[in-house]
Amino acid sequence: MTGAHCLLESLAASSIRLCFMNPGTSEMQFVSELDRVHGVRGVLCLHETVCAGAADGYARITRRPAATLLHLGPGLANALSNFHNARKARSPIVNIVGEHSTRHLAYDAPLTANIEALAATVSGFTATASTPASLGPLTAKCIAAALAPPGQVATLIVPADISWLDGASIAPPLPHTPRTVPDESVIAQARQWLSDGSPCGIILSGRALLEDSLAAAARITAATGARIFANRYAARLPRGLGGFNPTRLPYFPEPAEAALAGLHRIILVEAAEPVSFFGYPNRRSTLAPPACQFMTLASETEDSLPALIQLASLLPQADPLPSSELRPTLPSGGPLSPDSIGRTLAALLPDNSIVSDEMISSGEAVNGWLLRAARHQLLPVTGGSIGQGLPVAVGAALASPGSKVLALQADGSGMYSLQALWTMARENLNILTVIFANRRYRILDVEMERTGAATVGPLAGRMLDLADPDLDWVSLARGHGVDAVRVSSLPQFIACAATALNRRGPFLIEAVLD
Amino acid sequence: MTGAHCLLESLAASSIRLCFMNPGTSEMQFVSELDRVHGVRGVLCLHETVCAGAADGYARITRRPAATLLHLGPGLANALSNFHNARKARSPIVNIVGEHSTRHLAYDAPLTANIEALAATVSGFTATASTPASLGPLTAKCIAAALAPPGQVATLIVPADISWLDGASIAPPLPHTPRTVPDESVIAQARQWLSDGSPCGIILSGRALLEDSLAAAARITAATGARIFANRYAARLPRGLGGFNPTRLPYFPEPAEAALAGLHRIILVEAAEPVSFFGYPNRRSTLAPPACQFMTLASETEDSLPALIQLASLLPQADPLPSSELRPTLPSGGPLSPDSIGRTLAALLPDNSIVSDEMISSGEAVNGWLLRAARHQLLPVTGGSIGQGLPVAVGAALASPGSKVLALQADGSGMYSLQALWTMARENLNILTVIFANRRYRILDVEMERTGAATVGPLAGRMLDLADPDLDWVSLARGHGVDAVRVSSLPQFIACAATALNRRGPFLIEAVLD
Repeated sequence: MTGAHCLLESLAASSIRLCFMNPGTSEMQFVSELDRVHGVRGVLCLHETVCAGAADGYARITRRPAATLLHLGPGLANALSNFHNARKARSPIVNIVGEHSTRHLAYDAPLTANIEALAATVSGFTATASTPASLGPLTAKCIAAALAPPGQVATLIVPADISWLDGASIAPPLPHTPRTVPDESVIAQARQWLSDGSPCGIILSGRALLEDSLAAAARITAATGARIFANRYAARLPRGLGGFNPTRLPYFPEPAEAALAGLHRIILVEAAEPVSFFGYPNRRSTLAPPACQFMTLASETEDSLPALIQLASLLPQADPLPSSELRPTLPSGGPLSPDSIGRTLAALLPDNSIVSDEMISSGEAVNGWLLRAARHQLLPVTGGSIGQGLPVAVGAALASPGSKVLALQADGSGMYSLQALWTMARENLNILTVIFANRRYRILDVEMERTGAATVGPLAGRMLDLADPDLDWVSLARGHGVDAVRVSSLPQFIACAATALNRRGPFLIEAVLD
Repeated sequence: MTGAHCLLESLAASSIRLCFMNPGTSEMQFVSELDRVHGVRGVLCLHETVCAGAADGYARITRRPAATLLHLGPGLANALSNFHNARKARSPIVNIVGEHSTRHLAYDAPLTANIEALAATVSGFTATASTPASLGPLTAKCIAAALAPPGQVATLIVPADISWLDGASIAPPLPHTPRTVPDESVIAQARQWLSDGSPCGIILSGRALLEDSLAAAARITAATGARIFANRYAARLPRGLGGFNPTRLPYFPEPAEAALAGLHRIILVEAAEPVSFFGYPNRRSTLAPPACQFMTLASETEDSLPALIQLASLLPQADPLPSSELRPTLPSGGPLSPDSIGRTLAALLPDNSIVSDEMISSGEAVNGWLLRAARHQLLPVTGGSIGQGLPVAVGAALASPGSKVLALQADGSGMYSLQALWTMARENLNILTVIFANRRYRILDVEMERTGAATVGPLAGRMLDLADPDLDWVSLARGHGVDAVRVSSLPQFIACAATALNRRGPFLIEAVLD
């Protein structure tokens, strides 16, 4: 069997169902096998950043890897920024990169690049197939590496001749690396920290933010009054009415420090000590009170759920108070702003929705309102590389066809991967994109001041400004095959959102903010 | 003085006039200095791939570096594919990448990445500033490195605190590394190869393709009958009526081999031995006849012009025959095809135009006709990473405001950097973009067959297809602020092209091919 056939069969044997791709010459054999191997579907993306972000979004929802298929070093390079985000999200991804045929590599042909070096910047596992016979076992290793806790990008580089030559055979999938369970003594220490009266917080991340873990955390705070936080940059966070909502740490360090103020101890559950997104002059990078002590209940490679359940069972039993919060009513007037958009979406959001959040400066207001929306899955920014919002929505929609996916998207960062709109159209994905069109890299106005660059003259201001000319997102969407509308008043937005949330398929609303 | 002020003053002191940027928080100090330092203008690009490609295009025309300003590892990652092309073009570029403040790096904040590893994949020089005092000398070194023959990407990583702290001072520019002149004995050997009757070819690349070198090459072939070739993947090539036109080696290996068939010897001038773009089953990678001998008249770090002039003077004096070729007339009928578009453009092209060529499968026909257009500068694909066409046109237009720039662009690769259209609009660049809309990665139909993947089933075919939905380039252009029109017949194309070539500013024609 050819290497390409073996590779695709190996993906199928490990239940990898989707491959986000933008192939070139060296991947043609793989592509041709799509008609001969059952179980793996190709999804074409018009830029590799969409492939990487979509695989990330798919993994965040399913906790299973999708594959990506990329063309040589430059194709991989184009995907790196969203692989960076996937790496920070701990998303399992099987990343297949084509390479020149082994004999051709010696000649420094135009597309030759250092693929392994590029891959190593984002991958926990990188390997190059050297013979057809080695491809089967190497694929199995790569898939197992992607799935090894906590999950990672695993890159398999496949020279073209390894794909086209015979002599490959499928290797059986390797057993998964199990997650270990935290030690009893650690759980006992956490219990003591929560019981001795010293102010104690808990920070949850990773799988400790899945619904069952949150339920245990809710019992812990009901019993002890411990303040419970979510890592702001976690891969996925259930949120809204009908479940426990840990506090997300704010983006800027001052309010984040205020949220953690007074704590003497913090218990980390699949989380790291919280740090500021950026460093600033005359300000520390850490966010917890300087004398605060930390302990780890479960690392990100451990299984935190039994630890949280056991910890809750060791504490006084107290039922979480049912929330008195109600879904907000629609706003009755005022400007079109992140605040009024957030309230509108919270009022209208369907059950079981997924929210891909790359709102940047508009996010705080909207996410505040979404706490009172129907329970949904929030997919936050993880690595901070802009351009994740639309591709992650693509992957999430393919992972959960029954859900409405909202891509809540700032305009500046949306321009980084607008090609995702085309895949939304081709795959008829159930995604409503809302563009927060403030026509500026608004967050940088704040950051400019914070870094001590006091005055912003006209030339500097122009580098932060998306006007002159204004982007026309309705045309951009239609150019990609997605129907769209522009709104510039709140009543218009309410009417459009109500309609759009109740139709299937892709749609885009450009909300021009007041 | 702050590091940021020193950095910008140092660029100005070395006559670096443009900085293509997409800055973030760690670059805010630099941006704010744009209003305080004269001589360096910021050009905002909405994706870093546009920054890198524009700097490449600028360097190909001016042979001088522009700067790029990118945000941390992910910002650099987004630029890598067009830096790959710039590296293969030997374009000098001063690439400035912001980094977290030095104290903040220890905390693995979300945007933390291995910037040096990313930079090393495309840069001939990479350095990180560690103190404000070191920044001035390091900037001078970086600029000198970019300009060192043959030219390269030189990356300077600047942590945010190095930008905002005082204590920096400007270092004087370093002397340029001179190009060496080929030895007399080498020239004598070339003369012998050209004079002893054995079939001899010459391959030109780099600066040996500038107009003065071509004139010398024309005298050499007039005197000896030597066949003269241009590296297909050279950075820049003057072409058209009124000058010498070396033969460009074809893309596919069979016609490339045919072009070189019969040669016993090849003289390389700033060129490497020609190789196939891709390797294929049962086919060698080299293109010259297997027994062909090679010699290097001038390496790419040498000055080939005096060597070519001296070589021509040592040979029998013969004036090149004046070409009898005339500019073609407009086509009078037929389908809208690369052939009829090429003939139309050849008939209408203004003097001193620049052509950014990323036509891929449409290129051979169009470039054949452009041989009979008014003399122009062709900017070919160099590294083969798709998405260079529109950004390179941006840089070329800024480098040569008096020229009409034609971006001749395939639709599939155009989608890789369509954000360049916005910078064309903002800077009111004199660029006519022609989209060759065949709505398919057409070249891959051929490559699929070549790599031995004989059958293309419907699922595979869908991965090569840009239809369902069709891209609407008129909407895409207007969304970015560029006026546009779609044509689907030859008379329409002729009328639109005639108008568009005579207006200034950006415009786009989507040519839907028959």
